[in-house]
Amino acid sequence: MKITCSKNDLYNGLQIVQKAIPSKTTKDILECVLIDASSNELHLTANDMELGIETIVSAKIEEHGRVCLESKTFIDMIRNLPDDQVSIETNPRDEARIDCLNVHFKLPGRSGDDFPYLPIIPRNEPIKISQFTLREIIQQTIFSISETDVKRVLNGELIEINGNKLRISSLDGHRISIRNIELKDSYDESSVIIPGKSLNEIARILNGSLEDMVYIYLTENHVIFDFDQTTVITRLIEGKFFDINRMLSDDYETKVVINRRDLMGSINRAILLINDSDKKPLIWNVHDQSFEMHLSSTKGNFDEELFIVKEGRDIQIAFNPRFIADVLRVVEDENITIYLLSPSTPCFIRDDAKNYIYVVLPVNFKS
Amino acid sequence: MKITCSKNDLYNGLQIVQKAIPSKTTKDILECVLIDASSNELHLTANDMELGIETIVSAKIEEHGRVCLESKTFIDMIRNLPDDQVSIETNPRDEARIDCLNVHFKLPGRSGDDFPYLPIIPRNEPIKISQFTLREIIQQTIFSISETDVKRVLNGELIEINGNKLRISSLDGHRISIRNIELKDSYDESSVIIPGKSLNEIARILNGSLEDMVYIYLTENHVIFDFDQTTVITRLIEGKFFDINRMLSDDYETKVVINRRDLMGSINRAILLINDSDKKPLIWNVHDQSFEMHLSSTKGNFDEELFIVKEGRDIQIAFNPRFIADVLRVVEDENITIYLLSPSTPCFIRDDAKNYIYVVLPVNFKS
Repeated sequence: MKITCSKNDLYNGLQIVQKAIPSKTTKDILECVLIDASSNELHLTANDMELGIETIVSAKIEEHGRVCLESKTFIDMIRNLPDDQVSIETNPRDEARIDCLNVHFKLPGRSGDDFPYLPIIPRNEPIKISQFTLREIIQQTIFSISETDVKRVLNGELIEINGNKLRISSLDGHRISIRNIELKDSYDESSVIIPGKSLNEIARILNGSLEDMVYIYLTENHVIFDFDQTTVITRLIEGKFFDINRMLSDDYETKVVINRRDLMGSINRAILLINDSDKKPLIWNVHDQSFEMHLSSTKGNFDEELFIVKEGRDIQIAFNPRFIADVLRVVEDENITIYLLSPSTPCFIRDDAKNYIYVVLPVNFKS
Repeated sequence: MKITCSKNDLYNGLQIVQKAIPSKTTKDILECVLIDASSNELHLTANDMELGIETIVSAKIEEHGRVCLESKTFIDMIRNLPDDQVSIETNPRDEARIDCLNVHFKLPGRSGDDFPYLPIIPRNEPIKISQFTLREIIQQTIFSISETDVKRVLNGELIEINGNKLRISSLDGHRISIRNIELKDSYDESSVIIPGKSLNEIARILNGSLEDMVYIYLTENHVIFDFDQTTVITRLIEGKFFDINRMLSDDYETKVVINRRDLMGSINRAILLINDSDKKPLIWNVHDQSFEMHLSSTKGNFDEELFIVKEGRDIQIAFNPRFIADVLRVVEDENITIYLLSPSTPCFIRDDAKNYIYVVLPVNFKS
């Protein structure tokens, strides 16, 4: 193999595919990036067997071939080269010689044949969504997936398509996060559970705007994301997700409108007094126009009062403040609306159009 | 005690004194900051028994007194308050009530009497130096102190005053770093060894310009730094420093002038191939006009050639590349001059005026 390309194009491509390099693995080959010039294009690929990423880098192919290089050293090396043309040439022992101006590296490599290629999956009709929107709705919901739950479905997010509507949901035992968006086109009804880890990495690669599209192909066992020069394939999580609709309700006894930044500042202050070993609840006392918060731990006491607009009954209710803080961080509205029913039923934070719905279970407390 | 001050003044003061909070200690009281309003000024103090820092915050003292508060929670709390006036009031049980607008905290405290006060040391004639210069010369030499050496003197830097000359030096078993500066005034001859840890923290607090002065008082067992509203006291290291003058020499057989950034880029590339377990030398082959570098490890091979101006004999010599990189990072000249004598004698990197002198021992290699 012999190829020449610009250092920056190569480095950008490597940064994309390295998201699929596992941080820990017993299989050495998965720590490699595949540099594949078998065709007339230069493909870079990484694959941790759940998530695979392939991207095309514009290059001059002088001699076809492919090689696997240990990703960490190779990527560090490319980053530290001068901003100029880089050439990579392999010998029959799979050693790669990398030349850039007066800099010459030689790295041991492995045969490209050893690399676990991405599965070849026939593409059906894609779902089109903007890169910006997909990144946003992932980041706005992914914090409430369960990372350790034995129920594997909770380690992923549920994506449901119905006509021109897309809903993304995640839940752990304490809260639910939902975003609803409208797609430009309409599609058949379908739903998949995508591993949270894969969605996290995809959100990090997507840096396009509202105009740049992602094409999503849902298949039986995989989902494919095509965008720019990049293809991401992830396995799906098998199983049946919880019936989220059954957990949602429009009933409430108390409706509170509150400035989001003020509430967030206040909750961040309360969190300072929480010990990891001794989880104390944040108590809300909701009266007309006043919203008193109280938290007490071995570290000290916290009290703060905020101005609110309230409808309905007074209520006293308590939460794990970190769960409320997670919601406030991903909502962008100036004011948010909180719906409360009783001290033992979930609170709902949602907008009128239900573009977002966040559900948080309260905790017991002694008043 | 009852005081009122601005949140930002208080927070800035806390950021200064927290540099003397030990990260690990068996004495709880050292994790506290002393808030002392015994006089008509508000003093904040922290003291890890080697380094002590005290700073004055402008405040309204409504009731004299003092209290010790656990620094981490207290500083986090002040940082998270609204930007407004903060009042701190203690009760006879040393609990502190902190109020800022509608936010109210109560923290458990300890009696100010328990705090290890800074030693009271009579001040003699101070040495005057600009904050900017002191910060610079510390940062330009501190990297070569020995952090683990059993010889305690090597854990510190030697500061020598002679007339209007100040020299700061550090050395470990492999290299020496020296900066020489001229002071505005002249002083009696004296020298002290200051713990590296203290100098590091002082360099982090000093953010003044060339016009802002530090007043340094050298005493038998301590050195005091007075600047702005802050006093830093550190214990000195006892013992006799190595005779650095004996290690310096102006002899050379080869003199190389090289672009500093080019050499730094090259050495950073070579370092990528170094394993922590398998320290390979960077070999320099110095010929007329050409400077070839080579490093070979289990990770791969590196070769690069740089353009130089050379006087004297050709030479082949090898170094730990990290030691050369440390020097290049703290020199600001566009070109540096390297003086070499033989493959087994130290290399000198210095300017003509000897404002800086860096000495690095070579390592053995097979050519």
